[in-house]
Amino acid sequence: MSDERYNKGLKILNAIDPQAISRVEELLKDICPDMTRLIVEFPYGDVYSREALDLKKRELITIASLVTLGNAEPQLKVHIQNALNVGCSKEEIIETIMQMSVYAGFPAALNGLLAAKAVLTDSNRSS
Amino acid sequence: MSDERYNKGLKILNAIDPQAISRVEELLKDICPDMTRLIVEFPYGDVYSREALDLKKRELITIASLVTLGNAEPQLKVHIQNALNVGCSKEEIIETIMQMSVYAGFPAALNGLLAAKAVLTDSNRSS
Amino acid sequence: MSDERYNKGLKILNAIDPQAISRVEELLKDICPDMTRLIVEFPYGDVYSREALDLKKRELITIASLVTLGNAEPQLKVHIQNALNVGCSKEEIIETIMQMSVYAGFPAALNGLLAAKAVLTDSNRSS
Amino acid sequence: MSDERYNKGLKILNAIDPQAISRVEELLKDICPDMTRLIVEFPYGDVYSREALDLKKRELITIASLVTLGNAEPQLKVHIQNALNVGCSKEEIIETIMQMSVYAGFPAALNGLLAAKAVLTDSNRSS
Amino acid sequence: MSDERYNKGLKILNAIDPQAISRVEELLKDICPDMTRLIVEFPYGDVYSREALDLKKRELITIASLVTLGNAEPQLKVHIQNALNVGCSKEEIIETIMQMSVYAGFPAALNGLLAAKAVLTDSNRSS
Amino acid sequence: MSDERYNKGLKILNAIDPQAISRVEELLKDICPDMTRLIVEFPYGDVYSREALDLKKRELITIASLVTLGNAEPQLKVHIQNALNVGCSKEEIIETIMQMSVYAGFPAALNGLLAAKAVLTDSNRSS
Repeated sequence: MSDERYNKGLKILNAIDPQAISRVEELLKDICPDMTRLIVEFPYGDVYSREALDLKKRELITIASLVTLGNAEPQLKVHIQNALNVGCSKEEIIETIMQMSVYAGFPAALNGLLAAKAVLTDSNRSS
Repeated sequence: MSDERYNKGLKILNAIDPQAISRVEELLKDICPDMTRLIVEFPYGDVYSREALDLKKRELITIASLVTLGNAEPQLKVHIQNALNVGCSKEEIIETIMQMSVYAGFPAALNGLLAAKAVLTDSNRSS
Repeated sequence: MSDERYNKGLKILNAIDPQAISRVEELLKDICPDMTRLIVEFPYGDVYSREALDLKKRELITIASLVTLGNAEPQLKVHIQNALNVGCSKEEIIETIMQMSVYAGFPAALNGLLAAKAVLTDSNRSS
Repeated sequence: MSDERYNKGLKILNAIDPQAISRVEELLKDICPDMTRLIVEFPYGDVYSREALDLKKRELITIASLVTLGNAEPQLKVHIQNALNVGCSKEEIIETIMQMSVYAGFPAALNGLLAAKAVLTDSNRSS
Repeated sequence: MSDERYNKGLKILNAIDPQAISRVEELLKDICPDMTRLIVEFPYGDVYSREALDLKKRELITIASLVTLGNAEPQLKVHIQNALNVGCSKEEIIETIMQMSVYAGFPAALNGLLAAKAVLTDSNRSS
Repeated sequence: MSDERYNKGLKILNAIDPQAISRVEELLKDICPDMTRLIVEFPYGDVYSREALDLKKRELITIASLVTLGNAEPQLKVHIQNALNVGCSKEEIIETIMQMSVYAGFPAALNGLLAAKAVLTDSNRSS
């Protein structure tokens, strides 16, 4: 199979977080290494690479979706960090999560804020 | 009770869609008129009125959340129209819904696109 | 198989709504008649027949659950009627649905209120 | 902004659990202190303070909703304790969770019972 | 971009239902024609084309997932028909939906059975 | 009450995992021992004992449902082990979880694969 999509996805993923690919490979290598390829190719190669939305808006709507799902804490933390990486401010990220109290309810918003606290106060400290 | 929050919320809601308030009042007057006040005061008065996000980003993350929920078609259609009203482009709206295929699955994204089709092709016609 | 549970469930179901059993049988007879037996035996025979909660509280917590699910409108309408049948007031039913705005979000609560409107204003008219 | 709603909400919240407010403030102070105000004002000031349902019924329907959501364990534990505080019996709480097996499925009910076990056997010990 | 994945996906999709592609193209052409390509390439080209599961098992687990989601009736009906097309029996399809009462609750299972009734009694008639 | 259904359910449950019953009894004895009986009787006695699907297919569709729910990790791990016990291959289990990326989204599939990794690499080691 052609590596065109994989390379396109990897380029976007590396622009967001250069260490993501090795983390995902490590996580999946013993259970389902093919999933790594799917993750690079579909979300990043097919979707995030499109031009109609910039990466800042893409990360905010992803955060909105993950807070709404309410059961994807590891992915939510990754995307909160990614949102910072692509230039979203802490205020925008926190505000996005707060707004989810209206649509997904207070428990989802509150648990989202606690995930944000773990990422954002940690990234405070290291800076 | 003070009308401060109600008035603040109504001002935002009217800026997004001047006919929304009478539609909501009509819908709820026979079952739960107090809910109209809650809708104006909490989502609009308390949340949308905050400054950390502009209304365009607020409408896109709301669309992301509603597509992810997957069971809120009437509200999704309202917010697709609201997103247009506050200046989001059709391309941004459609792209936001497409991206949800990654996080909420293809059925949620597909049903979201069909809701968008109903709103966007209708608003095409009338313009 | 013994009919003990079926009879126990049917007795409760008939106390809530004497026409329910024939409606369910009619609905399922062409696709899965065995499901009718499961519905009578497990929810009604095994669960609703227990004494730790009266039927009024059982119907209110069921309404809370169905509004939270957000994708079970036909069942929600049935249980709103059932709640009336076992003696809950309209105010309690509406208030239960409104409270769900806190936990399940405004769209779920709003769609729940519209389901209640269809049932409660219809039952108004006929009384 | 007027403190009327905040004070009304705080009065209800203190009646349910006098230590709740300082716990919530502590949890949110480094990430989103404004959320504390929203939690006091909307759920407690606007909703729980209404008269159509007593606090015992309010806590049971909240438990039903949180078990149905299935992804709000910290909030579920808080409300199981709150239900005890306002006078619900252990049997009513457990029965409410069991009934959710019918509407939200066995995994949701089972995980809800394990959350209840952590709270209820712990509060046994301390009494 | 290479058409390799698209062609691989289309081959599988055509084997399941030769009219699917034109139906999807028609549905999406006015709102988001690019989504058609994503649907062919990712679910069918990347996933269903893999050898570890036959198409009969793939359609049954898809039905299980769609019944569990509870908000994807159009897609559920499509996959009930697809399951028949690839050789699943009616009994297997109905049984799969019934079993979801355990994990996703009775309303999800019941609404799934009514979707199955619409497809299966309709396909009865035409055969 | 007759023990017929309990015995029928226990026979199936023991065939899947002979230690399950004592684990469930231990887990629930201090909070809700009656739930143990419901679990044996309804899912196993009423549903899994039916002939229209073999246990291998039943475990795969259960895994599909639990991955889709996304908030039932303990139950997902149990059923991944159960699927192995009744003769599903590791490849079928992993493939079932991967396919859920299409319907329930990538976070649900990814978290499902990590649950599978915990079970399957652990059962590797001990064999």
